[in-house]
Formats: sequence, C-alpha cells, structure tokens
Amino acid sequence: MREGLSVSEAQAIVLEAASPLGAETVPCADGLGRALAEPVVSGRTLPPEDNSAMDGYAVRAADVARPPATLSVVFEVPAGGHAPRPLEPGEAARILTGAPVPLGADAVVRQEDTERDGDRVRVLVAPAPGEHVRAAGEDVERGETVLEAGARLGPAQLGMLASLGRTSVAVRRRPQVALLSGGDELVEPDGDVSGGRIVSSNSYTLAAACREIGAEPHYLGIARDEPADIERRLRAGLRCDALVSSAGVSVGDHDHVRGVLEKLGCRLLFWGVKMKPGYPFVFGRFDDGAGPLVFGLPGNPVSALVTFEQLVRPALLALAGHRALHRPRITATLGETLTKKAGRLHFVRVRLEREGHEVVARTTGNQSSGVLRSMTEAQGLLIFPAEATRLAEGEPAQVQVLDPDFLASAGSGV
Amino acid sequence: MREGLSVSEAQAIVLEAASPLGAETVPCADGLGRALAEPVVSGRTLPPEDNSAMDGYAVRAADVARPPATLSVVFEVPAGGHAPRPLEPGEAARILTGAPVPLGADAVVRQEDTERDGDRVRVLVAPAPGEHVRAAGEDVERGETVLEAGARLGPAQLGMLASLGRTSVAVRRRPQVALLSGGDELVEPDGDVSGGRIVSSNSYTLAAACREIGAEPHYLGIARDEPADIERRLRAGLRCDALVSSAGVSVGDHDHVRGVLEKLGCRLLFWGVKMKPGYPFVFGRFDDGAGPLVFGLPGNPVSALVTFEQLVRPALLALAGHRALHRPRITATLGETLTKKAGRLHFVRVRLEREGHEVVARTTGNQSSGVLRSMTEAQGLLIFPAEATRLAEGEPAQVQVLDPDFLASAGSGV
Repeated sequence: MREGLSVSEAQAIVLEAASPLGAETVPCADGLGRALAEPVVSGRTLPPEDNSAMDGYAVRAADVARPPATLSVVFEVPAGGHAPRPLEPGEAARILTGAPVPLGADAVVRQEDTERDGDRVRVLVAPAPGEHVRAAGEDVERGETVLEAGARLGPAQLGMLASLGRTSVAVRRRPQVALLSGGDELVEPDGDVSGGRIVSSNSYTLAAACREIGAEPHYLGIARDEPADIERRLRAGLRCDALVSSAGVSVGDHDHVRGVLEKLGCRLLFWGVKMKPGYPFVFGRFDDGAGPLVFGLPGNPVSALVTFEQLVRPALLALAGHRALHRPRITATLGETLTKKAGRLHFVRVRLEREGHEVVARTTGNQSSGVLRSMTEAQGLLIFPAEATRLAEGEPAQVQVLDPDFLASAGSGV
Repeated sequence: MREGLSVSEAQAIVLEAASPLGAETVPCADGLGRALAEPVVSGRTLPPEDNSAMDGYAVRAADVARPPATLSVVFEVPAGGHAPRPLEPGEAARILTGAPVPLGADAVVRQEDTERDGDRVRVLVAPAPGEHVRAAGEDVERGETVLEAGARLGPAQLGMLASLGRTSVAVRRRPQVALLSGGDELVEPDGDVSGGRIVSSNSYTLAAACREIGAEPHYLGIARDEPADIERRLRAGLRCDALVSSAGVSVGDHDHVRGVLEKLGCRLLFWGVKMKPGYPFVFGRFDDGAGPLVFGLPGNPVSALVTFEQLVRPALLALAGHRALHRPRITATLGETLTKKAGRLHFVRVRLEREGHEVVARTTGNQSSGVLRSMTEAQGLLIFPAEATRLAEGEPAQVQVLDPDFLASAGSGV
C-alpha cells in the first residue's frame, strides 16, 4: 500500500478505479440529471409534415406576389387534422399554428397581415415561398442521433425524448453509497450528549453531499470501536457501489476499520494524502469489482467534507457516468496574506466577494478541522499548493467554488 | 392590462408578485437545497468541553518544557467518557482524538512525538500550552446564531444542524406548480401521432425545469380547445402556488384560456413581452393571494422553455425563499456575426467553447422556435439587446449559462 500521496496522485488512483456503472431503464420523469447510457436515435421525423408557424392563412405564394390580393377561404385546417383536399389557385385556407399546411400551399400569411371578410380574405403582404412554414424534418430526421451517450438529461433533453414518443430511457445507475460512522463517543442527533459525547454529524453531511449529485446514501449507523460491530455493519454495505467510512483511520489504538476491511477482502491502495485538512484518508477496492470502492475519511467534520469533495465526489460522478467531475474553479484575489509550512496542499475555507471585476477571497476564520462552522460559511476552497509557504494579499489564487448561489448572477442581464 | 413590455419590465412585475411562501417544518434529511425560514440559534456549546485534536498524550505543558521528558501514564481517557481524576504534575494521560482533556492537563502531544515504554511515556517535543487542544465553544457558543434566515441548506449546513441536535428544520414551502397543456393537436408521448398530431412535450420539459429547482410539478393534462374542458382543468390547479399553461395565448381563434382565467377571477397584469422567442406571454394573479400566480406561455417548445427561464424560474425561486434567482452569466466572444431587427430582445441559443482565456459563443443553428433540438444543444442563451441590430464576430456579449456542466472545471486544480 502506498502512503503519503499528493492530492493529484490520490485523485488519479481513485478516478482510475471509478468506471461508469451499468445501465438501467427508467421512466423519463426519473431521468432528470442522469447520464444517458446509450445514444438516442430518433424513430420519427419532427415535425412529421410541413406545418404552420403562425396563426393565419395558407396560400400559394404566387397568388399573392403583388399584394393586396383577395383569395377565397375554402376551408380551415383543423389542429390535429388534415385539409380535406389540396389548395387550388386563388384559394386560401384558414390555418392555426402547428396545423399541417395543405398540399398546394407553399406559404403562410400571418393573420395580422390580412383582412377577413366573410369567406374571402384580403392578403396585404407578399410572403416568400416557404414563409412561416416549418418544414417536415426541420427539427429531427428519422434515424438521426439526437442525444449522445453520456449526455446529462436536463429539461430540454427530456422534452426531446417526449417529442420522440419515448416514455422511458436507458441511463447509468445511481451510485449506491453506504455511509458508516464510528466511535464510542458518537451519538445520533437526538442522542444524549452528556459526558463528552458528540453528535455524529458526518453521516448527515455526507448523505446530503451524496444526494446533491444524485447518489443514494444508505446509512449503516455508528459502529462501536470493536471489530465485530464494525464487521457486521461493513458487511451490510458490501452490495453498494461505494462505501464511505468516517470511522477512525488514524494511527490511534482503536482503529479496527482497516483491519476489518482487509479481512473482508478489500485491497487498500493508499493511505495518507498530503493535504490539510484531511491527511488520514484511505482508499481501497475489491478485486474484480467484487465489492464497493472504499473510502476511509478522517473523522473530523471539516476533514471529512473536504476529502469527500476532493476524492469521493468526483468518483461518484464518474460512477454515475457523468463527464463533468469537478467543481467550478475561479481565479480570486487574496484578501489577506496566508502562510504555512511546505509539504501539504491546504484547502483554505474562504468567503468570496465580488469587488469590481475581481473576486476577493478571505478566510472564514478558524481553520481548525473540527470547526464545521467554517464550512457552513465557506463559499469556496482556496488551493494553497503543497510546496508554497506564503500567498500574499493581492495575489491571485485558484478557488474551487462550493456555493452554487455564488455563481448565480445578480440579475438576468436583460 | 399592459401590453408589449420589455423583458426587464415583465420580470420586475413578476418578481414583485412572487413573495416567499410560508414555512413548514421538515425532517432535516428533506431540507437539502431549501431556504431556511428562520435563523438557527444554537442551544449547545460546540465542542462542549476542551478536547483533543490528536491521538497522543494529554500533559501539563510545564512538565515537558525541556524535552525529552518522561512521564507516568496514569490512565486513558475513553472516547465518549471522562478522566477518572485530574492530572497531577509528572503525569500523562493516553488520549484519542475527540476525547475530553483531563483537568490539570493543558496540552496534547501527538503520538508520533512520543515513545511509549510500559506505563511510562517519553515526550520528545515541547508542546505550547493549548497545543492540539480544541477549546470548548471553539466551533459554536450556546445562543449564537449559526445560520441566517434565507440561507440555502447544503451539506455543511445540514451537518451543523445535526451537530446541534436538530432533527427537523423550518424551511420555506416548495412551490407547487400546476402545468397545463392545451390544443386539439396534442397527444401524450405514448399517443398516436398520425394525422398531424404531435406530442405535448412542454409539460415534460417544464416539469423537469420545475424539479431541477426544487419546485413540485402537478400535471393537469392536455386541455381540448373548448372552455369547459379548460375550466375544469384550470380549477384543479387553483390550489397550487403557480399555474403554468402552455396552451395557446396567441391571437388565434381557439384561445379560450385567457377568457377562462378571467372568469375564474384571475387579473391579467400584462400580455406580450418584447422578446424572441416568446412574445405571446401572459401573466396574471388573483387579488389577495386567493389563487396561484398565473403564467401563460407560448406553445412552441423553445418559446415555452425560454420564457420559463426568464419569467417563471426566477419567480419560483423567489417563492421558495431563495435569494439567488438568476442563472450564472458570463461574457463570451461572438464566434459569428448576428443581425436582427430592432424592437425585441433575442435570446440566441448558443454553444460555448473555451478557447484560451476566452469563451466563444456560436449559435446552435436553426433558431426557429419550433426546433427543440436547438435547445438540447444550447449551453447558453446569448442576450441580443432589444434595440441592437448587429453583433459582430469577435465582439463581447452576455450569455446566460444553462448547462451546469459548462461551469464545471476540467480538473480539480490540485
């Protein structure tokens, strides 16, 4: 097992192991946000035939080349129906948006550009041939690939599937993620916190972080610091796609998780990542994909969430078949000077403020890995590179943006 | 009723009417992504007492000021328990991360900086007083406001609520959105499309667009072009917070929706927005909040989605109590020259590509409002201002970013 990797080395090993999960067919309504498992090829021509883009009159353009011109209104094309016969010279047909253009007609004149008088209509403008007509196949030709495998299904894609008559779609499975907490000092949120006990908040933080990206958390509860209880709970998570433990992976006396994992057949690939917060991180897998990817996170609330961000979230997105794995990243200007020792990459929790054309990053205060408060206030994680020892106020720095609202615009720009 | 508003005027009227909905108390697990209805004040001190940030030994710093120093290991502090007695001079206590620091001790020495020998430990470095000790209240003081009203609940916020012992939380209600389609030519995706009938894709597009932002769609089905059927369906949507119809609001013969809305007591505030796609848009409300906000969208698939983006989505986010209402906006460079007539603001569907430090925007091709395909390919909507008639290749333009994956970084930056 390798030890003390750089963050990029660790990320590469994790992503190497995170191949897209298998496909499943779901009702389209459940497809939102998921990755297509196969291309979507149209079985239809859309629109199926020439139809009107406007409410007005279908005409033969040649008849009205020198407006005004008066035509006989010989029928109305019903929405969802067809003209009873082709249009002859000198004739017009009343037509509504979306209705098929009658044979013989080659243009539509907007209602606003006509004057109706009984069964006659006076056309005031000369339409070009094809004007206000949507041609058959303009949107989609039968046999065309309209969505590529791997595409994320958003509202427009789901509307397209509906248009093609599809009610179900093949997408990558949602990653099933087992979450384990561990430690004799931990209780659930409604538990008794007297006597130095604290709430096991990591399971709640990490469950939400899973749900946010469409993964499904399965909570295995809080394991006591004894191998039998840890093993019993871990076994329950072996059918998942990923197992995320925030039980101890430190060098402490009570660390039984690693031993149990190895006993269950998990091969640990690395231990320790040169980052802060979050050095004590372990990653393992079962050979031949016989079990989940295994992520052992530090127990501290901030360390757990920051290592999840760097090493688990991209892997879960890759399992789900997505191609965009990383948080948006911006260049910000440091609002204060930061120093550290060389050797570990620091993820500095920062607040972000727009000042003119710049974004200024300032730390959220106490950067202790036990201070979850700092994480609730952090809009981003500033990357303080491993070998750097000083970043001066006013210098540019890279920031991973965590707060989706920060990216939202203050206005629509209209 | 006003007619022919600019997009910004229309948006202002809609947002003026969209006050945050009432609060409801939900289990924390259901709070993800929602807006807090009230501030969260801590009923706890976190951590509740001084505790160890490391696995190692609790010591009196004065005892080991000149290392190496050998101390007696007199007890171990159990996780989730307390020391049996205060630490006396010359004594050390074995301690694990998170365990309370015994009275008398004022620092923790990391295990790596010690050598254990039976019931004695040799301390190799001199800790500063307070080193590796997390002070009581370092994270949160009892009575402190830890989250402001209106804050969006993400993973860190939900973890914080768990830490405070909270299992439920008061958030703004999710907007309930009634969706109505209308037109005799429309069928559901599994319906028969012979004879010029087409699938009513808007309900599927718009339902997904609602879900994406946490609103709950309620589908009222496809109304026939007759007042009785429209009225029956609209009545079923009156208990919702918003009613979105993509039945005809054009000047066409078969437009009964507006009449029925007025009959039901809806006051129409404006009709027609100077935008393309999407001019035929109507907005109304019931006085005294006796019914939903009413949005009448054009029937064309692209017009429906683009007007939803500009005028419905921000309103639904405001109803949900969110403060960030608009899509991220970037400045892109035009990859081609665009021209149009003055008078309407055009939302041009564009693909976005990073080229060096720039983002280049190019149209998705056919900009017809019937071509849903263009919307599935659009990563953004380029704003071609109402009075502008030409935007030249190479010029900067504002783009609303629709594709969340476009903002994702190609790498984590580590």
